[in-house]
Amino acid sequence: MVKIAIDGMGGDFAPEVIIAGLSDVSKETDAEFILIGDKKKMDPHLKKSGIDPGRIEVIHTDENIEMGESLSGTLETKQDAPVMIGAKLVSEKRADALVSAGNTGAVVLAASKFIPMIQGIERGALATIYPSKDLNSDGPDISLLLDAGATIHCNVKHLVHFALMGHFYSKNILGIKEPRIALLNMGSEETKGGHVLTSVYKILKGISEINFIGNVEGYDLLRGVADVIVCEGMIGNISIKILEGVAGSMDVLGKKAYDSGVRNKLGMALLSNGLKELKRRMDYTEYGGAPILGFQKLCIVAHGKSNSKAVRKAIKVAETSVRNGLCEQIRDSVTELNMKLSFSEFDE
Amino acid sequence: MVKIAIDGMGGDFAPEVIIAGLSDVSKETDAEFILIGDKKKMDPHLKKSGIDPGRIEVIHTDENIEMGESLSGTLETKQDAPVMIGAKLVSEKRADALVSAGNTGAVVLAASKFIPMIQGIERGALATIYPSKDLNSDGPDISLLLDAGATIHCNVKHLVHFALMGHFYSKNILGIKEPRIALLNMGSEETKGGHVLTSVYKILKGISEINFIGNVEGYDLLRGVADVIVCEGMIGNISIKILEGVAGSMDVLGKKAYDSGVRNKLGMALLSNGLKELKRRMDYTEYGGAPILGFQKLCIVAHGKSNSKAVRKAIKVAETSVRNGLCEQIRDSVTELNMKLSFSEFDE
Repeated sequence: MVKIAIDGMGGDFAPEVIIAGLSDVSKETDAEFILIGDKKKMDPHLKKSGIDPGRIEVIHTDENIEMGESLSGTLETKQDAPVMIGAKLVSEKRADALVSAGNTGAVVLAASKFIPMIQGIERGALATIYPSKDLNSDGPDISLLLDAGATIHCNVKHLVHFALMGHFYSKNILGIKEPRIALLNMGSEETKGGHVLTSVYKILKGISEINFIGNVEGYDLLRGVADVIVCEGMIGNISIKILEGVAGSMDVLGKKAYDSGVRNKLGMALLSNGLKELKRRMDYTEYGGAPILGFQKLCIVAHGKSNSKAVRKAIKVAETSVRNGLCEQIRDSVTELNMKLSFSEFDE
Repeated sequence: MVKIAIDGMGGDFAPEVIIAGLSDVSKETDAEFILIGDKKKMDPHLKKSGIDPGRIEVIHTDENIEMGESLSGTLETKQDAPVMIGAKLVSEKRADALVSAGNTGAVVLAASKFIPMIQGIERGALATIYPSKDLNSDGPDISLLLDAGATIHCNVKHLVHFALMGHFYSKNILGIKEPRIALLNMGSEETKGGHVLTSVYKILKGISEINFIGNVEGYDLLRGVADVIVCEGMIGNISIKILEGVAGSMDVLGKKAYDSGVRNKLGMALLSNGLKELKRRMDYTEYGGAPILGFQKLCIVAHGKSNSKAVRKAIKVAETSVRNGLCEQIRDSVTELNMKLSFSEFDE
């Protein structure tokens, strides 16, 4: 039986959308759930939700970590926040995975504090799904970028492991047959980017199990050229936030056009398909959540602005990952690679 | 007398737009010019241009470095490329500055090879101007981001010097009274980003001559919150290329709407002001060029797709920088800072 721990208080619209998403997912699966949060606030929604009480355990806590809250000292002062309790439950094997739409940094912190890393892996990675397809082509297309901010800087081994982790997530959870793995760099040539990136390039080229397509550059991020983009957390965090900023600009553009009079209103209505399409592709709420990879158990961070659909997807992804043995696959492949490769020759 | 060396063969539309831009600028100033390139190709345009032959020296060379050309071995094999000759002229004080619309990496390479750095500065920076104003506000607004790719990784001293260099360029060349200087980071708090960035933060906060506003994040890049964005070359290069990629997506969106039938054609025509405005703000050809700072003399890289207006601006900026003593100001301020500060305490 799969059991998912869920932060009932995380995100801008909690607990309402959390419980609504949970209710939806409970109809599609036989998983069980542990919902953590403020009972007073959650109970009215729970009652309405129609979730079978036999399948859900509720753990009450008054504490919470707000979205924009600074995290310094959090580990000491907020031990009873839902994500902390959730990560502890996972570490004690009382739950198989944790889902939160709350403060990303807090989830990463909770995972790092309580859940052991997969043996041989030294750094976890926040893997963000973003819409990457060239607007020239049709159909949905997303890429996975990791790390989006769990690390700051990375060494050769960290990045190689990120590539493997991204490969398995893309293949087994996102359903991409032969994920194209790329290294985010400042040039496309193999020789670009300094010692760490050139070493990672060499190693990834030699791993026959993955489809490494080489370096990609900043302007490739929206061209849908790769399924998995590998980079250190500092770069991934800045990159993803630039794309979020662009999505924000789209909104402003749309509003401006709408406000500026009839001519533009008409234009807006007619062109809105195009703009909506662009916005939709940049809309993070459509893709469920960002897994934190590298730990023995999975934590998923859903977007803070998640609606119930996004929450439902995030919980579903957590459940699928547990059933598919995602973390175990990553573990086995890293163990095998670490036995074959000596990373020490690449140390600076 | 100011004398500017100009790469006659750099960029997608050389030599035609180079000579047209040069011709325009020659009417506004009494500067002199050295034009370097293939005489056979340049002569027809020169004849038409009406530039006073007494103010322009032409140096012929058959060699050139193409836009996308790989630069490995260039220093040995392409010593007679226009940018190499131009940088040598500057180093021999036969010219005061170099302007090229060619391969950015080649200009950086030529500068690094031939032009001495300002004493006390260890790394040069490519400073890219990009349109950063929030679409909510009116009027032009640009920011300067450095380094956009002359370096890969940076230590504390490099980044502090970049901030000073950006300050003087923004103030004296771009005409911003008290440039807001920001550090590009993965979080806004002072404690974010690891040892190097937190140390840079501390130092910049203590320099009373500059207006340091703290850390900015990826989504701030298009919000016009800072006039100078400081980061290492790897991050700056990727960030600027993401923004270029977004501008490309705008194009595709526009074309798609245009191609997809009458309804959208009408919508496109009506909304085009909004889209054009967004595109214009992301259009690099409007802002002249990217200076390479940190050297005793200035090199300016204009966009490869520069038209004559952009070339004119780049040459004008080079001339103004020479007249204003930009490099000397940077030198004096860095000397003063280096005397006050011991960077060694910040070494890891």
